[in-house]
Order: sequence, then structure tokens, then C-alpha cells
Amino acid sequence: MVKIRDIAELAKVSPATVSRVLNGRGGVSLSKKKRVLAAIAETGYRPNEIARSLYKKSSRIIGYVIPSILNIFLSEIGRAIEEEAFDNGYKVILCNTDESPEKESAYIDMLVSMNADGIIIISNNDSLEAEVRECPIPVVVLDQKIDARHFAASVQADNFQGGYLAAEHLVRCGCRHIVHMRGPQKYISGVERFRGYLTACEKYRREPAYIDCGYDFESGLACSRELLKRFPEADGILASSDMTALSLYKVLCERGTRVPDEMMIVGYDNIRLSTLSTPELTTIAQPVEKIGRLAVKLLIGPARSRTNCQPVSILPVSLKIRQTTKIKP
Amino acid sequence: MVKIRDIAELAKVSPATVSRVLNGRGGVSLSKKKRVLAAIAETGYRPNEIARSLYKKSSRIIGYVIPSILNIFLSEIGRAIEEEAFDNGYKVILCNTDESPEKESAYIDMLVSMNADGIIIISNNDSLEAEVRECPIPVVVLDQKIDARHFAASVQADNFQGGYLAAEHLVRCGCRHIVHMRGPQKYISGVERFRGYLTACEKYRREPAYIDCGYDFESGLACSRELLKRFPEADGILASSDMTALSLYKVLCERGTRVPDEMMIVGYDNIRLSTLSTPELTTIAQPVEKIGRLAVKLLIGPARSRTNCQPVSILPVSLKIRQTTKIKP
Repeated sequence: MVKIRDIAELAKVSPATVSRVLNGRGGVSLSKKKRVLAAIAETGYRPNEIARSLYKKSSRIIGYVIPSILNIFLSEIGRAIEEEAFDNGYKVILCNTDESPEKESAYIDMLVSMNADGIIIISNNDSLEAEVRECPIPVVVLDQKIDARHFAASVQADNFQGGYLAAEHLVRCGCRHIVHMRGPQKYISGVERFRGYLTACEKYRREPAYIDCGYDFESGLACSRELLKRFPEADGILASSDMTALSLYKVLCERGTRVPDEMMIVGYDNIRLSTLSTPELTTIAQPVEKIGRLAVKLLIGPARSRTNCQPVSILPVSLKIRQTTKIKP
Repeated sequence: MVKIRDIAELAKVSPATVSRVLNGRGGVSLSKKKRVLAAIAETGYRPNEIARSLYKKSSRIIGYVIPSILNIFLSEIGRAIEEEAFDNGYKVILCNTDESPEKESAYIDMLVSMNADGIIIISNNDSLEAEVRECPIPVVVLDQKIDARHFAASVQADNFQGGYLAAEHLVRCGCRHIVHMRGPQKYISGVERFRGYLTACEKYRREPAYIDCGYDFESGLACSRELLKRFPEADGILASSDMTALSLYKVLCERGTRVPDEMMIVGYDNIRLSTLSTPELTTIAQPVEKIGRLAVKLLIGPARSRTNCQPVSILPVSLKIRQTTKIKP
């Protein structure tokens, strides 16, 4: 980690001079200023935004860094991000990390060095927080707790409400044994939906039961088979996502279990496939359009100054009742 | 379109001097060289690769420009592109044009100005050919005819073979009235698959019948309804993609038509969803992994020199027989 002191030593000036150059204040000779800028370039030091604005204009580029381009929900958010960005004269670069901390770090560095105006990121890497803290350009984090809030804003859907609404709906349909395929507990979405599910179970006096699951359909297949083995009494299942709800439906079909007569399913996300599948999925709709547009507004709007602590934005979700649930006769 | 002459005039030097600067030859005074570089910056002139390499190193970035991030097939190719790129020390930037020529042009300009090492693009915009011809960095075009082949390479799956294999399979299953939901005729994939379908119809003496369709599932829904109205005798359907095959299945379910007993379906692409859906789709598998990796190899390998005419690479496809077709008793 390069410090101002290192720059000063290399440029043969005092740290105060480096600071004056970085902050655009006067009183520095041209030759000293040149030496400081050369030292910055040589060390790869990433100066803060004020400093960068001295010698480089806005690139009008926003980076969208995600763990998987195969996740349709993230693609749908990406589309909303892009629309809001283009409406405001910005371009969007999508970077896929495949959940690798190395790729994530490489992409953040790339975006910084190309002078992007901001980064919207979704990540489950432990290294994210340190990276966001160090990052000299504004960052909006989706679906993640970030303590370094004065450096970044956070946009989330109301996952607690979603888990609660889904479980309550299964109760109202008449389900006695409601099992939750809970999402990864490293994501705030996984934690909060599970908490919502537990709260509904407590209120309606259902015994909580759950199994750990990912968000993709492969993990949904394995998890569904395990669930049906472990909880043969289940009559209602809250899936971790629409994709895993589709996996579950597939496994139930293989076993000849009828949906919704013998088993009810609630998905999560309201991706477009949830209405394409047959039967159509009852699911929790996340405000995809709002999430994407708000993330961009936080980056390019006045909030960008980041001098004040950014609040965490939590957007409401809603229940979409379709064909995988019905009120028991 | 800025020419060397314009640069020369602005920099108050001769065109030969501009050329010497661009080609890195000596004999140009520092002050003249500076004026030429300033004029290049001012006019937005995009010098050729040799010239750029004079003052900028490789960025180790590859751009992947696509018409929709909601198209799962393109995301799957993107993943292969990224794996091959990372294996070779390159990063991938994904740009979504939403089929807009303006966005496409803006992203190509952005990639050029950030000194990307190459662009992999899929597009149906008429402006693409001119853009590829002008583009100072290497381009690989997927699923598209590009006449300016000395500027770019083209990678395609064997769409003719795919259309033929699918139709032949429906014939062998015993279908008498095979209808094709043909893809957009602005894409080579749409044209070639249709040609393959027609060739199989001719060989096996089936009356060709088709309806125009997109590749996404919304267009598949509308097209399926129209098809069943227009061709009530249909007993086998070759969809334009797996997504539209899923739309078709949905519409058939609504009408109570049993698959495959009363209607057989062959999809196209072999996206992962084709095995997740219930029933699983019989489909044509495109070599996604190979397409993505080959596109990257063409950009970063020795072929990059682009001094010779690049061949069009056509990769073989295969039939995956699953649950939406069966041999009639």
C-alpha cells in the first residue's frame, strides 16, 4: 500500500507538497508538481477523486461488477442500470468476477485506472470491504453489508419483508409444514429472508425447517432432492430464488408430486421466467427497475460528493400470487 | 471522418510528417511531434494500431458487445470468453447495446479509446459493417456476415447443419407437418437454420411451413399462438431457440395439448434451462465453450496481425434428444 510519504520520498519533496498537489492548492513549483505526478504514476498510487480530477476528466463510465453473468436477476438489474445511465449520458461496463476475489480486484483496479465515475458491485468476497474502503471512486454496493459507509452507498430490496410475506402466504394457503430453501448466509439477502421466514413461523406457530441452498438452478436440484428426503412431511416450500423454485418443480415432477395440490411453491425474484414456466410461479417481486436506477442516481447525483454518510436504501417488495400456490379447500 | 491531411493542417506540418509520427519513424522534431499528437487528440482521430502502440501499451482488455444481457445464450458464450481471456491474462468488458446503433457505436468508441486489445461483437445493426471496417483494433464478429473480412474474423456455429438435423429428427420421429418458427432473417443464424430446415423438408418430402419469430420468449409466446392458429395440422415444431420452445410449451399447456404425444418440439441452443424445464427440451447444442474460446484466440493469437484475410470459422453442432420428442408408435 503506497502512502503519501512514499510519494514524497520518491519525488524528493515534503509530504505537505504532495498533499498540496493532490488537493490542487497552489504554492508548488511546476518542476515539483511534475515530480509528484511522475512518482504517483510510477508507484501506481491511486490518488483520491479530487486529485484525479486535476489531470483527468470524467470518463462518463459506470462499472457494474457481478459474480455471475448467468444470474438472470443480476442481468435484469443490469438492464435498468444501463437505461438510467444512458439517459444521463453515461456508459456501463459489465464485469463478471465468477466469485473470484482476484478477478474482482482486477476489475476494480481496471475501472479505477480508466477513470470510471463509479462502481456498482455485488459480491460475496470477504475482501470487498477493504477494497471499497480503498477505492478512490464512488461505490454502490447491492445486497451487502458494508461498514465503510462513508465511502459507499448500499441499495437493497427489503429481504426481511420478502421472507415474511412468502411464509405468511403459505400459511394462509393452509400449509402446515413450511420448509425454506435458504440462500447463502454470506449474502444479506440470504440472512434477511431467513429472518423474515422465522418471524412468520413464530407468529403463525409453524415449526421452522430449512435447508441450505444457493441461488442457481444446479444447487436447487441437489437441495430439492435433499429437502424432500429430510422433510417428507413438507407441504409448502419457500425457495431461495425463482431458479431454485424451477429446480424444485422439476424434482417434484420426477416424483409425480402435483403442484400446487400436493405441494405449494413460492419462488423469489420475479424474473421473467417465473411467468414463462408452466405452471407460473408464485413469487416475491423485487423492484429490479428501482434498484438499478437508484444505484446509478446515487453514483452520479449530488450524493456523489460522499462527504456525508450515505444511508442504506431499502426498497419494498411484493407478493405475486400465480399457479404454484392456492388456498386449500 | 478525420484524415491524415486534416491532422497535418491542424498541426501545421506536412502529411508525411504526420505519417512519420504515426509510424514511429525518426526525423521529426519534438515540437512537431507534440503538435501532431495534440492534433490527433483534438480531432478525435483514431490512429491505427501501430501508431497507438507508440504511446500506449496494450490494455489487456477485450470488449464483448452484445444486443441483450437478458439473452442467456450470449451470457453463456460470455462466460467462455472470460475464461479463455483470464487464462491468458486479459480482462473482459461486457457492453450491452439493447440493439441500439447509437449505443453500439458509443461502446466501440469507448473500447477503442481505452485501448482495448480487441472486440468480440454480435449485432444486427446495419451500421456494424462500416464500424468494423473503420475500427482500429481487431474485431471478431459472431453470427454475422461481414464482408470486410480482412479487418475481422467471424465465428459461427454451423446453423445450416442445426436446422437440417432438427427437421430430420422430427421426420424420423414420424411428424408429417413440421413447422419452423424461424429466427430473424437479419441474423445469419436465422437464415442458415431456415435453409437447413428447407433442405431437410425437400429431402424427406415434407411441405415447408414457417412463421417469423424472434429469439426471446416474449416473441415466442405471440408467435406460438399465431402458429397454432395458422397451422392447425402441425404435429412437430422446430423453434427458433430454447426460449421460444419454452414459450411454445406454455401455450400448448394452456390449450391442453400433450407434449410429445400430440405435438413434438425441438428447441435450439441447448442453454442450461433446456434441461431444467419439465419436460426437458430436445434441442440443437451449439458449441458455446468453443465459440467463446476461439473468438478470444483469434483476437490475441498470431491471427491478430490481420495482415491476411481471416477465414470464417464454422463450428459443428449436435442434436440432443430429450423429452419433447419421441418416435411415434
